[in-house]
Amino acid sequence: MEYRRLGKSGLQLSELSLGSWLTFGKQIKNNIAEDLMKFAYDNGVNFFDNAEIYARGESEIVMGKILNKMKWDRDSYVVSSKVMFGTRGADSKPTQKGLHRKHIVEACEQAMKRLQVDYLDLYFCHRPDKNTPIEETVWSMHNLITQGKILYWGTSEWSAQEIMEAHMFARQYNLIGPTMEQPQYNMLHREKVELEFSQIYKTVGLGTTIWSPLASGVLTGKYNGKSEPKNTRLSIDGMEWLKENVMTKDNLKRVDNVDKIAKDLGLSLPVLAVAWCLKNPNVSTVMLGASKLNQLEENFNAINAKAKLTSDVMEAIEKALSNTPIKPGF
Amino acid sequence: MEYRRLGKSGLQLSELSLGSWLTFGKQIKNNIAEDLMKFAYDNGVNFFDNAEIYARGESEIVMGKILNKMKWDRDSYVVSSKVMFGTRGADSKPTQKGLHRKHIVEACEQAMKRLQVDYLDLYFCHRPDKNTPIEETVWSMHNLITQGKILYWGTSEWSAQEIMEAHMFARQYNLIGPTMEQPQYNMLHREKVELEFSQIYKTVGLGTTIWSPLASGVLTGKYNGKSEPKNTRLSIDGMEWLKENVMTKDNLKRVDNVDKIAKDLGLSLPVLAVAWCLKNPNVSTVMLGASKLNQLEENFNAINAKAKLTSDVMEAIEKALSNTPIKPGF
Amino acid sequence: MEYRRLGKSGLQLSELSLGSWLTFGKQIKNNIAEDLMKFAYDNGVNFFDNAEIYARGESEIVMGKILNKMKWDRDSYVVSSKVMFGTRGADSKPTQKGLHRKHIVEACEQAMKRLQVDYLDLYFCHRPDKNTPIEETVWSMHNLITQGKILYWGTSEWSAQEIMEAHMFARQYNLIGPTMEQPQYNMLHREKVELEFSQIYKTVGLGTTIWSPLASGVLTGKYNGKSEPKNTRLSIDGMEWLKENVMTKDNLKRVDNVDKIAKDLGLSLPVLAVAWCLKNPNVSTVMLGASKLNQLEENFNAINAKAKLTSDVMEAIEKALSNTPIKPGF
Amino acid sequence: MEYRRLGKSGLQLSELSLGSWLTFGKQIKNNIAEDLMKFAYDNGVNFFDNAEIYARGESEIVMGKILNKMKWDRDSYVVSSKVMFGTRGADSKPTQKGLHRKHIVEACEQAMKRLQVDYLDLYFCHRPDKNTPIEETVWSMHNLITQGKILYWGTSEWSAQEIMEAHMFARQYNLIGPTMEQPQYNMLHREKVELEFSQIYKTVGLGTTIWSPLASGVLTGKYNGKSEPKNTRLSIDGMEWLKENVMTKDNLKRVDNVDKIAKDLGLSLPVLAVAWCLKNPNVSTVMLGASKLNQLEENFNAINAKAKLTSDVMEAIEKALSNTPIKPGF
Repeated sequence: MEYRRLGKSGLQLSELSLGSWLTFGKQIKNNIAEDLMKFAYDNGVNFFDNAEIYARGESEIVMGKILNKMKWDRDSYVVSSKVMFGTRGADSKPTQKGLHRKHIVEACEQAMKRLQVDYLDLYFCHRPDKNTPIEETVWSMHNLITQGKILYWGTSEWSAQEIMEAHMFARQYNLIGPTMEQPQYNMLHREKVELEFSQIYKTVGLGTTIWSPLASGVLTGKYNGKSEPKNTRLSIDGMEWLKENVMTKDNLKRVDNVDKIAKDLGLSLPVLAVAWCLKNPNVSTVMLGASKLNQLEENFNAINAKAKLTSDVMEAIEKALSNTPIKPGF
Repeated sequence: MEYRRLGKSGLQLSELSLGSWLTFGKQIKNNIAEDLMKFAYDNGVNFFDNAEIYARGESEIVMGKILNKMKWDRDSYVVSSKVMFGTRGADSKPTQKGLHRKHIVEACEQAMKRLQVDYLDLYFCHRPDKNTPIEETVWSMHNLITQGKILYWGTSEWSAQEIMEAHMFARQYNLIGPTMEQPQYNMLHREKVELEFSQIYKTVGLGTTIWSPLASGVLTGKYNGKSEPKNTRLSIDGMEWLKENVMTKDNLKRVDNVDKIAKDLGLSLPVLAVAWCLKNPNVSTVMLGASKLNQLEENFNAINAKAKLTSDVMEAIEKALSNTPIKPGF
Repeated sequence: MEYRRLGKSGLQLSELSLGSWLTFGKQIKNNIAEDLMKFAYDNGVNFFDNAEIYARGESEIVMGKILNKMKWDRDSYVVSSKVMFGTRGADSKPTQKGLHRKHIVEACEQAMKRLQVDYLDLYFCHRPDKNTPIEETVWSMHNLITQGKILYWGTSEWSAQEIMEAHMFARQYNLIGPTMEQPQYNMLHREKVELEFSQIYKTVGLGTTIWSPLASGVLTGKYNGKSEPKNTRLSIDGMEWLKENVMTKDNLKRVDNVDKIAKDLGLSLPVLAVAWCLKNPNVSTVMLGASKLNQLEENFNAINAKAKLTSDVMEAIEKALSNTPIKPGF
Repeated sequence: MEYRRLGKSGLQLSELSLGSWLTFGKQIKNNIAEDLMKFAYDNGVNFFDNAEIYARGESEIVMGKILNKMKWDRDSYVVSSKVMFGTRGADSKPTQKGLHRKHIVEACEQAMKRLQVDYLDLYFCHRPDKNTPIEETVWSMHNLITQGKILYWGTSEWSAQEIMEAHMFARQYNLIGPTMEQPQYNMLHREKVELEFSQIYKTVGLGTTIWSPLASGVLTGKYNGKSEPKNTRLSIDGMEWLKENVMTKDNLKRVDNVDKIAKDLGLSLPVLAVAWCLKNPNVSTVMLGASKLNQLEENFNAINAKAKLTSDVMEAIEKALSNTPIKPGF
């Protein structure tokens, strides 16, 4: 396992890390969650990602219990939460969600309690909040850092414009700006990480903790067969969305093309897909989700698979994908 | 003619304005240029746009002579230039182009001389310059304002990220940031103005002086006929580019669809296209180019045509175009 | 015992102070450590230096127990720690060392616990960390001050450039910059304190808590005899390094020369060497290490010996050393 | 001729440039000076270096006359001056030298007059001035930039500490800090450029316009012969200094060693020495001095010689020199 700096910050994350979205407190039993975390930690993973909304707080509770049981040194791992949606879904009162100071402060306290920690290492704004000035959010996050309740703050699925606006206020008021962004990134979803953010890595030293390296499972190849797979971790609604937006004819063709390259290299498709994400130097860590231990074990082969992704292979993949993000000219 | 504030600034520009690109000092005789400016000014236009690269300085010289001859009150109009490409094309030496301090300062002096003015009202960075830190450009533009050589500075075809980076440095150093951006905007090219910049109008109060409201003439309908039109103002190379990038099958279909709506409203297609741009409240002014006076006269009908673009009509146009920019979901 | 201001700060340290490196928790029994601290405190020493890496945390534990036992008023002494290397040596995980915010915060908590204090008076960055931006380190140290966990922060073995970079960020963001530096300084190692830092005492008011006034024992004269001394506090590796880098032919000659001056003054060589350090007004305090009480008692004679170091004597020493640091001319 | 950015600034200088020290207005006739400048400009040089002290103002007068006669476009070249020593040598009154605001402002006006230009592109503080706070100097230089009298300011032979102190004040007061430093750099004088400044290229983006690439002629090999060369451009005093400080036994051996490598490559020694400087990516431009046109022509071969300096050759040179600057350990 290699460790990479989170953008320009001095904090080093393991190149592979463990996400809990859709799984912890929801699709998997708690003992499976424990097996996943233990395997990950024992194999060098030092970052466990979470959010208040994941299983409506249950994901943090499960992770907190495991951390408490394992008794790993607190300085040996990094744990995150995300604020925005609250834990009550449609029942949220107006003060119980969003990126205003009250929810940011209260959500932080609640997340620390559920996770049984004294501070969060990383704290993300889970989405932009159109109803709160970014200025207020930057101040609130900065204050949590100066209070010692969080160590670094970041964003998830914000636009380059929004991230730069946060840094604009940080520079204006001498505050600590966002260190990292958590975007979706995979072979089928590249524009944000490769094009929209391309300057930000240099100008403000943004780090990225990417999610969905397998494109909700589409890059496992399981949706390329004739009949639909069963027992996937997606809800029926999620499945519909996936069909319309990700499982397009073009994308399924891409998956087929890349699958051939994987076979030639003696790799499984998901291992190739994860290793491909790792090849991007602007990716700080690739967050893996898994509902079974053997899935996670399999995906960890991506670490060694990186060596097989020579520049020739990368070019072949680029051709197979035919979706290089290009800045529009005129 | 209505006047609109240039973003949050107090400067008011006429909703229609006159560009000189491809025409002044190049495709049209100087007396035509004079006729165009005279007609525009007499009909309320108060903004004349220019750039050092237009006809390699010749466009500014022509405009300067006309301004000098007309003897309009200097405080009755706004004149611009743009810096980046120099006036020497491929013969430029490294110091004679770009957005470093030397070229910004020298290009400003040269443009003032060619335009025969003591100061430029608006001064644009014509494109981003990857070889100069935005910090240096912001400082240089700010200094020109404090020296009284320019009044407002802006950008042209910069990304939201780059504009925000300029504002980040402006806030950090207490400098004057960019007031306006000059993007392409028309029925066939909408993403930047409608989606990418959507937050910037509010957060930093960006104004826009849009170019190519007729999509290089494609929205006049002249390319929708069976045979190719002659006497267009495009070079052969430009024609090739236009065919591949703008005159796509989808776009020509859009033009046909919108043309029907124009006919139903008793408007010409270009008048509808210009009026449609004016309906966007984030557009500060629509810059018109013209190689003949009657073209310009015709396009000025857009001012009155606005009234016909009711919300029902706008919805019909939206359907006819079917190219509403949408933020990618997940 | 005189007290000197720590640079421009108002905090006054005893001119002699007690270090724990290589001794506490390692080469000496805990009762010896207690004797040393008691003697020092009773004779006016008010500064006890420590670091997380010294005996891998054991040095702080020993010192903490003694402080707890002695029950000296907390406001009568100053205690320090240093962050960088962690307490686990080669077993450190990436998050358990360095000058990023996570380790700075966690190391501070851990040091307070081991030292049994509620706050550290001085907290040093033990070395530069090339993998963390100095900006992040300055922010983290400043936050610890505002949280009341440390009172002053400084550096150890940083270059003038690095110290000034820390002050650059401190001025930019209105933060508290580093107050002091802990450099090696003695008759055989002068360049940093006398030349490289010469402007910093004035410009930012740097204080210095110098270590190794006896050049790892070389200035006791014990290595000038015919056979090698036994029972030194150096490991075999350390001895090798010392031989190659400090015990050069030129340096041993210097020691001989200075020894003659010491004899003429009726002083032991180490007393002269310590007194010589005290004569430098840019030295805030000379940190003494000792493995036996009588060593420490002997070295305390440096306080009175200062009076014998008249300007004539200082000139004679300068000649005997012949190693005045000189700025290269051209 | 390649062009390189002056540090992080967007200004691009030719990799080779022309200095006037010791030659213009002093050792060479004005028609030679004209030949040198003409040859340089025609071969792509865009930077001509000068200083108020060079031949006590006479060097600037000569250069100004040539610039005026040549009528090169002002935006096609970069001209510098340096302030510190005045033009009157020992006759200077206290207000006529130094880096206080009065001399900086007055020296700038005088240099512009002698050089017959409306602004200086680069303006250097020729040495540190112990009698003026750096804060005053930074403010004065910044003001000249905002007034349009200079475009970029820098330092010459300042220490890393002093350069960082200038940036510290620039950050504190939101001023423009120094863009470049003019240090001596050649095979026999490496510490400042390679070691002391090593962090500054990254942290503040320092550019360097290096002088004496041939070590006052020692790297031409002319001093390695049996008898002393005649007709050198050094005064008798300069010759004495050179003998004691540069022409040491070790250095003459280095010159011999490198001469052999040059011969193997089919290069002259000075061409190899200049090309070696160009290989350092932190060198923005190598300033050449020459008293004869054929010297300058010969040295321009360094541009093509770069290609011969493969990593193998560079390693061989490193061994031949045996003077790699090393950070002292402990």
